[in-house]
Amino acid sequence: MDSASPDLKVIGQRLARVDAKERVTGRAVYPADFILPRLAHGKIKRSPHAHARIVRVGVGKALAMKGVYAAISAADFPDIADGTTVQIGEGFADAAALAAVCMARGKVLWVGQPVAAVAASDPHVAAAALDLIEVEYEVLQPVMTIAEAMRPDAPLLHPDWYTKGVEPKPARPSNVGSRTVHARGDVTRGFAEADRVVERRYTVDTAHQGYIEPVAAVADVSPSGMTTVWASTQGSFMLELQLAAILGKPQSQLKVVPLEIGGGFGGKINAHVEPVAAKLAEKSGRPVKIVLSRAELMVATGPASSAEIEVKVGAKRDGRLTAIQARYLFDAGGFPGTPTTLPMQASANLYQCPNLLLEGFDVVTSKPKTEAYRAPGGPQAAYAVEQAMDELAGRLALDPLDFRRRNASTTGSPMVVGTPFPSIGLTTILERVAQHPCWTDKLPPGRHPRGRGLAIGYWRGTSMTSACHISLTGDARANVTVGAVDVAGTRTSMTQVAAEALGLDPAEVHVQTGDTKSVGFTNISAGSRVTRTMAAAVYDACGKIVDELKRRAAEQLQCAAADVIYAGKALHAGKIGGPSITLAALARASMLDGVIAAHGISTRLPLGVEIGAQVADVEVDPATGQVTILRYTAFQDVGRAVNPPSVEGQIQGSAAQGLGWALTEGFDYDREGRLRNANLLDYRLPTALDLPPIEVVLIETPVPGVPYGLRGVGEVPIVPPAAAVANAIARAIGRRVTAMPMTPERVVAALKGGGDGARRVTHDAS
Amino acid sequence: MDSASPDLKVIGQRLARVDAKERVTGRAVYPADFILPRLAHGKIKRSPHAHARIVRVGVGKALAMKGVYAAISAADFPDIADGTTVQIGEGFADAAALAAVCMARGKVLWVGQPVAAVAASDPHVAAAALDLIEVEYEVLQPVMTIAEAMRPDAPLLHPDWYTKGVEPKPARPSNVGSRTVHARGDVTRGFAEADRVVERRYTVDTAHQGYIEPVAAVADVSPSGMTTVWASTQGSFMLELQLAAILGKPQSQLKVVPLEIGGGFGGKINAHVEPVAAKLAEKSGRPVKIVLSRAELMVATGPASSAEIEVKVGAKRDGRLTAIQARYLFDAGGFPGTPTTLPMQASANLYQCPNLLLEGFDVVTSKPKTEAYRAPGGPQAAYAVEQAMDELAGRLALDPLDFRRRNASTTGSPMVVGTPFPSIGLTTILERVAQHPCWTDKLPPGRHPRGRGLAIGYWRGTSMTSACHISLTGDARANVTVGAVDVAGTRTSMTQVAAEALGLDPAEVHVQTGDTKSVGFTNISAGSRVTRTMAAAVYDACGKIVDELKRRAAEQLQCAAADVIYAGKALHAGKIGGPSITLAALARASMLDGVIAAHGISTRLPLGVEIGAQVADVEVDPATGQVTILRYTAFQDVGRAVNPPSVEGQIQGSAAQGLGWALTEGFDYDREGRLRNANLLDYRLPTALDLPPIEVVLIETPVPGVPYGLRGVGEVPIVPPAAAVANAIARAIGRRVTAMPMTPERVVAALKGGGDGARRVTHDAS
Repeated sequence: MDSASPDLKVIGQRLARVDAKERVTGRAVYPADFILPRLAHGKIKRSPHAHARIVRVGVGKALAMKGVYAAISAADFPDIADGTTVQIGEGFADAAALAAVCMARGKVLWVGQPVAAVAASDPHVAAAALDLIEVEYEVLQPVMTIAEAMRPDAPLLHPDWYTKGVEPKPARPSNVGSRTVHARGDVTRGFAEADRVVERRYTVDTAHQGYIEPVAAVADVSPSGMTTVWASTQGSFMLELQLAAILGKPQSQLKVVPLEIGGGFGGKINAHVEPVAAKLAEKSGRPVKIVLSRAELMVATGPASSAEIEVKVGAKRDGRLTAIQARYLFDAGGFPGTPTTLPMQASANLYQCPNLLLEGFDVVTSKPKTEAYRAPGGPQAAYAVEQAMDELAGRLALDPLDFRRRNASTTGSPMVVGTPFPSIGLTTILERVAQHPCWTDKLPPGRHPRGRGLAIGYWRGTSMTSACHISLTGDARANVTVGAVDVAGTRTSMTQVAAEALGLDPAEVHVQTGDTKSVGFTNISAGSRVTRTMAAAVYDACGKIVDELKRRAAEQLQCAAADVIYAGKALHAGKIGGPSITLAALARASMLDGVIAAHGISTRLPLGVEIGAQVADVEVDPATGQVTILRYTAFQDVGRAVNPPSVEGQIQGSAAQGLGWALTEGFDYDREGRLRNANLLDYRLPTALDLPPIEVVLIETPVPGVPYGLRGVGEVPIVPPAAAVANAIARAIGRRVTAMPMTPERVVAALKGGGDGARRVTHDAS
Repeated sequence: MDSASPDLKVIGQRLARVDAKERVTGRAVYPADFILPRLAHGKIKRSPHAHARIVRVGVGKALAMKGVYAAISAADFPDIADGTTVQIGEGFADAAALAAVCMARGKVLWVGQPVAAVAASDPHVAAAALDLIEVEYEVLQPVMTIAEAMRPDAPLLHPDWYTKGVEPKPARPSNVGSRTVHARGDVTRGFAEADRVVERRYTVDTAHQGYIEPVAAVADVSPSGMTTVWASTQGSFMLELQLAAILGKPQSQLKVVPLEIGGGFGGKINAHVEPVAAKLAEKSGRPVKIVLSRAELMVATGPASSAEIEVKVGAKRDGRLTAIQARYLFDAGGFPGTPTTLPMQASANLYQCPNLLLEGFDVVTSKPKTEAYRAPGGPQAAYAVEQAMDELAGRLALDPLDFRRRNASTTGSPMVVGTPFPSIGLTTILERVAQHPCWTDKLPPGRHPRGRGLAIGYWRGTSMTSACHISLTGDARANVTVGAVDVAGTRTSMTQVAAEALGLDPAEVHVQTGDTKSVGFTNISAGSRVTRTMAAAVYDACGKIVDELKRRAAEQLQCAAADVIYAGKALHAGKIGGPSITLAALARASMLDGVIAAHGISTRLPLGVEIGAQVADVEVDPATGQVTILRYTAFQDVGRAVNPPSVEGQIQGSAAQGLGWALTEGFDYDREGRLRNANLLDYRLPTALDLPPIEVVLIETPVPGVPYGLRGVGEVPIVPPAAAVANAIARAIGRRVTAMPMTPERVVAALKGGGDGARRVTHDAS
């Protein structure tokens, strides 16, 4: 069956999530639920300083306390050689930085960074023991903003760090981790040719992934040294690699068992507590559970980057873009390494423009090391660029949709990184927007000013590797073990893929998530990749199983395996209607003849880039600055929806997260680096009461060369929301809000003509 | 690498058991240790009658008790259609009988058979609730011995059962389950030609497998209906098939997770508590744990058959056998189905004899349904036949070893079942015995009479199917998941096989036991089959992995895959010394290129029949009848010892079990079917103080056509011990003890000239 198959039976069905009942009844087991005999409870002592040298950590008094089984600090972990990296996703991350997130060594770089940990008979004893740990600091000056960090006289967080991507090597160390430039044409000439130019600066606050399940893990170390970690992780194999580097153990002595995960969104790729739990387990000789509080999550796991982005765009009077120039400053937190190219692509890839100059910086500050958050950097970049484009359309008196159609990239257009676009359907999507009531309906009047905003988004997504294995049971059902953690319905969608490929009913397929010892290496559940690449792996394994069925049938039917046809749960010699043997009979015989089973892998699958467009209707109360979203519609080409409700849910959830960041979610640090809103009352996630139903419009253009033509889904819907809402606000109140989240205070400030921290410079060259 | 490979590096090493530290520190997790949140505790109500009709079971009052979550009886299980069978090992067992062992339906057939069960907040509440369950019986007359059961007027345990294997079909139902006959030549003529004939009747008491870990299980049923059972089982897949039949569920809704097993020896193949725990879990909505007491194990799990065996053997003056005739009556307990052909083979296969008539009967009695116990029926049969042979040798004034050499089967000799023997090395073994000090040393004098006894044993063993899968980690180590439960060192021996086949160090291999959803169907860990067949499966998978390594190396080395040589953890183009790529590099790249992994299966592997000889020196206190074993030596051809200490341990453990049954282990039922010695004080297993060190002499003749030439090991050593000891006793005191176990009382009775229940008939035809 290939992507052109017209007769899919199971793929495309609205199958209920196979794990739905366990989830809604509270029976699904997350690490916080997981228990083992003799379980001890771990707690982490954290730095009160945003920048300090650790002079001494003394755990002796804590260790002497009744009920305390182990107390550790960085001294209990092995040194990590300079330059040691760990493969994470498609890239390689610095192992020492990954380790320092779990346990600071030598220096603390943010408030809340772990400096010690204990395991005790219960969480209360453990918490009390933390107070007995003595930590002596030499306090240093923190740098809390990108601007501060880039000042020539700024305190250096990493005194040996020289900005990467600058030639020749800089003479002095810097808080700038790296500089990345993508250019084409000549922007100076481009702007000179422009009839209209818009230039503006935008800021975005740090935000948290906001997963509902706190970070938690249980670890146990067997007497022979096998370390097992029951984790809530987006990548059990990646976590195993991190544990190997941080604990100094080979993978054959490590096993990660992924339990259920209650949201990750990029924030559960890197280790936070797992190496600490493992070390405490090793020291105490007991299994150890660590469950973080919401405050700990917010203070000391890796949030999304704050950003400062300056954008200048110019166009001819007919709407054709002549130049795009932008400078993206991304806050990396305590260690360099936040991606910059991805968000540049997210914001500029969809526009055809002859002259381009994008410059990205990755800047360290005295905040937690940032981590991925769904389309990392994409929402920040789109917030800036999509507003600038919208403003430019306005200055040209062009309909914003029309403006985007005139400049839309098509198959073969050059991307930011220079290579031509693979098959994309942006124009189709824009066509669908143009015809949809969300765009054609007249905005109904309300008590307050209303506006409609449009934004488009691009996300590259990834492929990487996926593995599974499948075996047929004696009663002709399929056991599928996948290496990918199920963050968004993998077990359900793979049930459908295996049922489709093996000609079974979904009820005859059982999919489980394997641990790192029971299935082949599989990369992270991130990058909009799992459904498409795991589907390819399952498709591969199913193909091998059908081949083996044909081989065994051929022996009995006395024909060539190549002549056997598999259809209707039977294997037919030559043609349907002739001699045949049932799948049931072959499966039953396999208990004596040997199991029918196969491994499946997928690697280097063609990318399935994600493109979406979103339309927001908002109402703005000018007195309070409150923005109410009235209507929201998300358009997206998904290639093919294996399970439409899951795909719709992914898009709705992703857009909802974008809307939360757009309006309310942002970290509020004081000058000493203390997070003032480390709780869900003061850091406000949107609830069902805050958002309208999000309508999803699926466009299905199968991707060539990919089994069933699947495209990535999960990331791109978070890219446009803030821009769409900002554009709607601008239409409602006639002013741009350029600081995100666009809180009531900031909206009011914009209405008053400033105070949102954004500088406004526009040139009307005409 | 084939069985002839001269340069094995890891196979044959005395590697420490990979699970040794977990086992000896108490950290290994058995079902009794396993906990889950909200765990409930199950208890089983048992029949006080050995034969009764169940009129009514009322669970209402128990269910109303505080803390009781569920109460069930047979009414809660689905009906099983007549003739429904479950594949167990190589055969098919009656599903209704398997179910009745877990929960009686309609009738109880032995004291202790389950009639109801409860799940409650703790085991004490559960135990108290059992008293509230009302069961009304119509008591019937039991039959407690084979002789009683075979009387024409015996109460019929299964009124619809007609003896199988009798033509024409018998006119009346019977307690005889089946009759099996194996014959060759003409025994009447054979005995007529004999110069000496010995005829004697032997009896063997019921014995228990005596595994140390009690039967226990934890079951949970998810809201979507997936039943998971954490079990101590010899066959997770066989248990799943039983659960499917007893619970009426498809395999895709069942998952068996094998935890550690503390001995099984055949007694943990059939389900005992698992379906009950699963049903209680379903009813209560909680995980349920059931742990049996030692008394429950002995009363109501399946012990080994008691037996009555009459043997008549004749030989010419030169020692050549002329006829073997024997009648084997095996006690099946409450349901027919105990094997008879296997023990006939065990006792007569090793002798070349032109005239043979063996008749086996499987007889039901009012005792627990018997189950396999290491070489099922072999010890009983050998106890009879090897004594008869020894006595015959004595009457011929022949050395017992010499007598056996003269009649020893060789390659090509006809077996009991008619087919010719595959390559066997009995004569080699007997040669080794003849040269060994245990045979050539003079028996040192003692306070009491001493004697030396020899016995030989045969066991067929099995092959059946095994499956595994193996993947290489990014750090070039191997993850092996096997489908077989590790009853005797499987993880250790498979570590060695995988290390050997992949050119790794054992520390670089991790072997784990898969659950029924994570690895391919694998038959039971029984029948002396696991090491040899799983080695073949691992060998198969490793071969595929090496092929894939060569394919990937060839791409980089730009040569044909067929020309790549794998040696020294590197892949070499054409020859060693030329261009090469390391295993480490290919493994690391696999994290981007896709995992290197393979399934392995083994099915229909050539049998590796087991043959052993054992020599016992004993001292007999004529006043007390106490038999002391002074020296014990076991000779065995093992093909090749993957891990010699494991092989030696298997042989020592198996012989020790044989010696326990030989001297002390036997069930003592009263007339109403109550077991009077259902505890380990009155049913006496041998301890380290009771046995001398057992010397093991390994002979390694690799089996052709089997990877590494492995032969079965674990069963045959239990076959000769009782006979070897009996022969030694006979040499010491000049009298035969013909009832097993040969307790002091029975030895004293034999010395007094009778009273052991055996009738003595010998003919000296000369």
